[in-house]
Amino acid sequence: MSGSIFGKMFRISTFGESHGPALGVIIDGCPSNIPITLEDIMKNMDRRKPGNAQIGTTRKEADEVEILSGVFEGKTTGTPIALLIRNTNQRSTDYGKIKDVYRPSHADYTFDQKYGIRDYRGGGRSSGRETAARVAAGSVAKLFLEQLGIQVTAYTRSIGSVVVTDKDFALDEVSQNPVSMPSNTVSTKALELIAKARENKDSIGGTVECIITGLKPGIGETVFDKLDALLAYAVMGIGGVKAFEVGEGIHASTMYGSEYNDGFYMKDGKVTKSTNHSGGILGGMSDGSDILLKAHFKPTPSIAQTQQTITKNLEDTTIEITGRHDPVIVPRAVVVVESMVALTLADLILCDLGANIEHIKKIYQ
Amino acid sequence: MSGSIFGKMFRISTFGESHGPALGVIIDGCPSNIPITLEDIMKNMDRRKPGNAQIGTTRKEADEVEILSGVFEGKTTGTPIALLIRNTNQRSTDYGKIKDVYRPSHADYTFDQKYGIRDYRGGGRSSGRETAARVAAGSVAKLFLEQLGIQVTAYTRSIGSVVVTDKDFALDEVSQNPVSMPSNTVSTKALELIAKARENKDSIGGTVECIITGLKPGIGETVFDKLDALLAYAVMGIGGVKAFEVGEGIHASTMYGSEYNDGFYMKDGKVTKSTNHSGGILGGMSDGSDILLKAHFKPTPSIAQTQQTITKNLEDTTIEITGRHDPVIVPRAVVVVESMVALTLADLILCDLGANIEHIKKIYQ
Amino acid sequence: MSGSIFGKMFRISTFGESHGPALGVIIDGCPSNIPITLEDIMKNMDRRKPGNAQIGTTRKEADEVEILSGVFEGKTTGTPIALLIRNTNQRSTDYGKIKDVYRPSHADYTFDQKYGIRDYRGGGRSSGRETAARVAAGSVAKLFLEQLGIQVTAYTRSIGSVVVTDKDFALDEVSQNPVSMPSNTVSTKALELIAKARENKDSIGGTVECIITGLKPGIGETVFDKLDALLAYAVMGIGGVKAFEVGEGIHASTMYGSEYNDGFYMKDGKVTKSTNHSGGILGGMSDGSDILLKAHFKPTPSIAQTQQTITKNLEDTTIEITGRHDPVIVPRAVVVVESMVALTLADLILCDLGANIEHIKKIYQ
Amino acid sequence: MSGSIFGKMFRISTFGESHGPALGVIIDGCPSNIPITLEDIMKNMDRRKPGNAQIGTTRKEADEVEILSGVFEGKTTGTPIALLIRNTNQRSTDYGKIKDVYRPSHADYTFDQKYGIRDYRGGGRSSGRETAARVAAGSVAKLFLEQLGIQVTAYTRSIGSVVVTDKDFALDEVSQNPVSMPSNTVSTKALELIAKARENKDSIGGTVECIITGLKPGIGETVFDKLDALLAYAVMGIGGVKAFEVGEGIHASTMYGSEYNDGFYMKDGKVTKSTNHSGGILGGMSDGSDILLKAHFKPTPSIAQTQQTITKNLEDTTIEITGRHDPVIVPRAVVVVESMVALTLADLILCDLGANIEHIKKIYQ
Repeated sequence: MSGSIFGKMFRISTFGESHGPALGVIIDGCPSNIPITLEDIMKNMDRRKPGNAQIGTTRKEADEVEILSGVFEGKTTGTPIALLIRNTNQRSTDYGKIKDVYRPSHADYTFDQKYGIRDYRGGGRSSGRETAARVAAGSVAKLFLEQLGIQVTAYTRSIGSVVVTDKDFALDEVSQNPVSMPSNTVSTKALELIAKARENKDSIGGTVECIITGLKPGIGETVFDKLDALLAYAVMGIGGVKAFEVGEGIHASTMYGSEYNDGFYMKDGKVTKSTNHSGGILGGMSDGSDILLKAHFKPTPSIAQTQQTITKNLEDTTIEITGRHDPVIVPRAVVVVESMVALTLADLILCDLGANIEHIKKIYQ
Repeated sequence: MSGSIFGKMFRISTFGESHGPALGVIIDGCPSNIPITLEDIMKNMDRRKPGNAQIGTTRKEADEVEILSGVFEGKTTGTPIALLIRNTNQRSTDYGKIKDVYRPSHADYTFDQKYGIRDYRGGGRSSGRETAARVAAGSVAKLFLEQLGIQVTAYTRSIGSVVVTDKDFALDEVSQNPVSMPSNTVSTKALELIAKARENKDSIGGTVECIITGLKPGIGETVFDKLDALLAYAVMGIGGVKAFEVGEGIHASTMYGSEYNDGFYMKDGKVTKSTNHSGGILGGMSDGSDILLKAHFKPTPSIAQTQQTITKNLEDTTIEITGRHDPVIVPRAVVVVESMVALTLADLILCDLGANIEHIKKIYQ
Repeated sequence: MSGSIFGKMFRISTFGESHGPALGVIIDGCPSNIPITLEDIMKNMDRRKPGNAQIGTTRKEADEVEILSGVFEGKTTGTPIALLIRNTNQRSTDYGKIKDVYRPSHADYTFDQKYGIRDYRGGGRSSGRETAARVAAGSVAKLFLEQLGIQVTAYTRSIGSVVVTDKDFALDEVSQNPVSMPSNTVSTKALELIAKARENKDSIGGTVECIITGLKPGIGETVFDKLDALLAYAVMGIGGVKAFEVGEGIHASTMYGSEYNDGFYMKDGKVTKSTNHSGGILGGMSDGSDILLKAHFKPTPSIAQTQQTITKNLEDTTIEITGRHDPVIVPRAVVVVESMVALTLADLILCDLGANIEHIKKIYQ
Repeated sequence: MSGSIFGKMFRISTFGESHGPALGVIIDGCPSNIPITLEDIMKNMDRRKPGNAQIGTTRKEADEVEILSGVFEGKTTGTPIALLIRNTNQRSTDYGKIKDVYRPSHADYTFDQKYGIRDYRGGGRSSGRETAARVAAGSVAKLFLEQLGIQVTAYTRSIGSVVVTDKDFALDEVSQNPVSMPSNTVSTKALELIAKARENKDSIGGTVECIITGLKPGIGETVFDKLDALLAYAVMGIGGVKAFEVGEGIHASTMYGSEYNDGFYMKDGKVTKSTNHSGGILGGMSDGSDILLKAHFKPTPSIAQTQQTITKNLEDTTIEITGRHDPVIVPRAVVVVESMVALTLADLILCDLGANIEHIKKIYQ
């Protein structure tokens, strides 16, 4: 099992190596009659692309998506939707020198151990490029969710030690700066930090936060397939994520019940909670409040500093990785987190409410 | 889908409400010829039981396990193993008053929203009692892993603000104190904190840490079904867990690549890493190092303080929850975390190496 | 994978050996608020029991079912429903002599080859007794389907060469004879054939037919998960079934398109077909007509005649099997076919229409 | 769920409509280090193509396959293998007239009922063209099986009433006639029958038979996931199959146990069976004998005779279908049956023996 299929009812199957001919995805189980255009997809693809020389790799990929099936006269038909993304700018020559050396913090060593063979021209399936297929699929999931009034919104909460505090938080500024932070002021500091890291031939980690609005109560299952468990699975499956939090997250472990518990009360005839420490999930099911989660990313593994490592023949050596690499992955990962969250929600909604968009809409009126 | 089946090849299916006749589990896919005794299972069941009046509920359940199938002459046969645990000490009368009131931070409200019906005699499937079936199944998974020299060891890292630091850390003391902390000294402080919380009609959260040793490289899949993603899913599926970390976890987000990356080197002919910030996982696959993860638990939701809430008829009210409840769930959750981790590993090993114990053993020699 | 879990959304997990302490099943994913009584289940269990000394084994099992979870105040709650059936009349001594001999047409040899261990006290998981758990689960599926006006009705179409022709066919006579044939006259001949077979220390095969009424168009998926493909999987998974037909079945292979094709026409404002050669399925989806399928069973493998075979140590030998065995399995298999068909339909309906009974009912009004 | 994913461990995900831009498949879970060339795939693709104007459609598709991922330097890498087949000869204008009319025995009506939208330019996902993706995937499965010495061989057993009897049977003649029959003499009669049917604007059904050799005992699971049940699911999922048989098939229902049971005996130190009525499967597991199965196909639904039917607006009408259609689908379906059988075996072998080709080979030496 190579583990490239995700979901139970809204299922995606992805393929593609960073330096092969193409990447892509098949979406099996998307409800029919969802309006869809190539622009809807490209809007998300563009958010994943390296937009800014200051922070991103200089590899330029158009990431043009071709819709091969499942869409007819501008609507989904209920049959599998195949989306194809050709690689156009791979430069395998860059990678000749890593053919026989295991890069630290990369998957080269584990790939060889597992499969006994590896496409050494790049990261292969472990390259960040793999996420292009997730974003293409996530775009379709988001179009489905939008039909129900459900929104998934992610942004960069921190890069290294530069954090957007609640005081600075302005959601409408996310699209106004190259690091997708909800604060233009803080983003300037983050850009300085990134520039510094690049100067030092170094890289840096960061945190993506995500809010789900519009989800009705009862989505998610009560035991193993809790909404938070499935979100954790989806988000921890993105390369580089080392921690996942929902609601108060880690902080919950130091809280008292009397502080943590969210009291219910009625407001304008609606069930409301005085606080939302639980992050919108109770017993694994959505409770109708906003859902809040965080994904913490490690620093990009490829750095130009000299690192100790071993060769494929198990001899000590050193390596400097000088290809086209992002000093920070976080800003480009924002839309990837959104995509994985949207795919999880689409899947759970179908599990609960079935595959007929007209029926689902009635429930979500 | 009620989501009570876990795993792909080593699959478990659990059932049972806190106040119904019984709980239990079917394990479908356990390899044959694994030696197994009831004592092996009871040893783990006993660790989950409230062992100490100071910290636990006063509900006393023997948690006697009956093996109904799949074991013959002391060995697994490869057929489904059914384990039955009768409830003997449920006191439904305690719960009469919560029939029509939604307890804050519990799943009462979301259950009613999802299913339109609820066994109001207790937490039902959302009760901590549900984990008894996980522990029974996890015992079998651990017996399988032990055949391969793989050990899963969990303990309490912190309760509230009382943390076992690396300086105090002594793994052999875990079994010597009622809170399963790797430090008897620190455990004393934790017990004081718990006593204080109980006195204040309050509860408190905490953190469980888990180490996996003996796992060879290459376990886990490269894209969605990464080892860390599946561990996150397994552990976040335990009631009350609000955050999951692997390796450096959240801390990774503030680190530089030059600090974080674990260099490879050869030592005594073996591949070694200078550090283990990655927590034993590279690209979603085990790298042969120890695997390190953490689960952060919220405080127990049931507290005797007066809380604001609503009735089933959506009217404002207040509630004091005075049943038999743990002021802290963490010490009893230690073996639950171990169980879910063991089940995840058993499943992934079968996916990769097949179901024949003799073949697997040859690889794990 | 021992393969004892069935379904995607309405999932069942079964366990139990013929000579172990108990058999049973967990149903995970049954919608909530379905009225259910033990009598509903026992009604089906009784149809599977050997009702008649003339045709059945003399092993007497009460097959009392205990509901362990998932039902509250006479209704399903949406949580897993566990059903337990204790074995009470196993006589392991009967089986001592088959400990070391592989019975022809049984699974003794393949079990040993696959697992290297076998509960030699009986057929274990390959015993017909295993189907008790299927029938218990199928009862619940049928209760769900009845809420939607869907009926699944099976009967014996033939035993050996004794066939109920269309001329003799009377559905209301099925419950009036011990072989569940839709013809009391023909059943008499069948009983004679069975008596003769028993006299000759022999056994005989037969055919079960099944009709589904009330299913709306569009159930079943278009490519791999066609309704007929999933029904074939469900029915061929019953021990002893060697062939499966839908609609015209084998006969279709000798027909011309002009004979076979079912013309559509309108009648009283409803879409109707002039014939139903397709058996109610077009392109893998239900077309609103009755669905017709057949399961062909081999003769019971256990016969008292002397048979050539080998021992566990791979030496030639002979065997006479003289335990308590049915000379024909078909009449008792009728309710098993019904159960597997009902489970398949329940699962596909949930996949398509979701898990909420109120929403599904609106569609099926 | 649109049901276009097949398998548990060796999983394929297909896409593509008959008149869309392309069809294709992703294979997720193929073991690494399997030698593979485009020629291996094209050899099978060519068998599916209409090879002979006498019997086939005049639509000419090159069915050129492009390998997009998962293969490196002539070997599989263990990552998903994507195979792309462009449609080049679709003539949508042919289909204008079927936009608003439901063709009898086609899936037009059920598609509209299920999805409320349909790509009316052809059969869409229900077109026989969909099987191109199955054959591409099946080619890879066969390459894997060949590494283990397992062969899957299918051929046409009958067309209409023209049957190859055991007397005429010559396996080496299958590739020598355009209908893939194991008898050149009988094939001549079949071609006459087909010519006659075409002349009469009619179509005809037939039967494909398939033999599996080289499979060791123990493949297949004991309860629901029996080898025969999964083969039935795989084969009944091919469009047009109305019946499935294994071993004696339907004939078993009229046999006595004393006739049917296959006696074991030792021959040259090997376990042997005196007959193979069971078709190589005992208790759902392979028994080491050849496995024999049959798929019975209905006549091609598209015929040029006038047929009664209804419009999309539910009015009575008539239709003559005059596009490019096969009067018989059976000869082209031979390789499709082989493919689905090979995919089923590959999947079950991985479930049992794991994903590492070196380990599996050791067992299959």
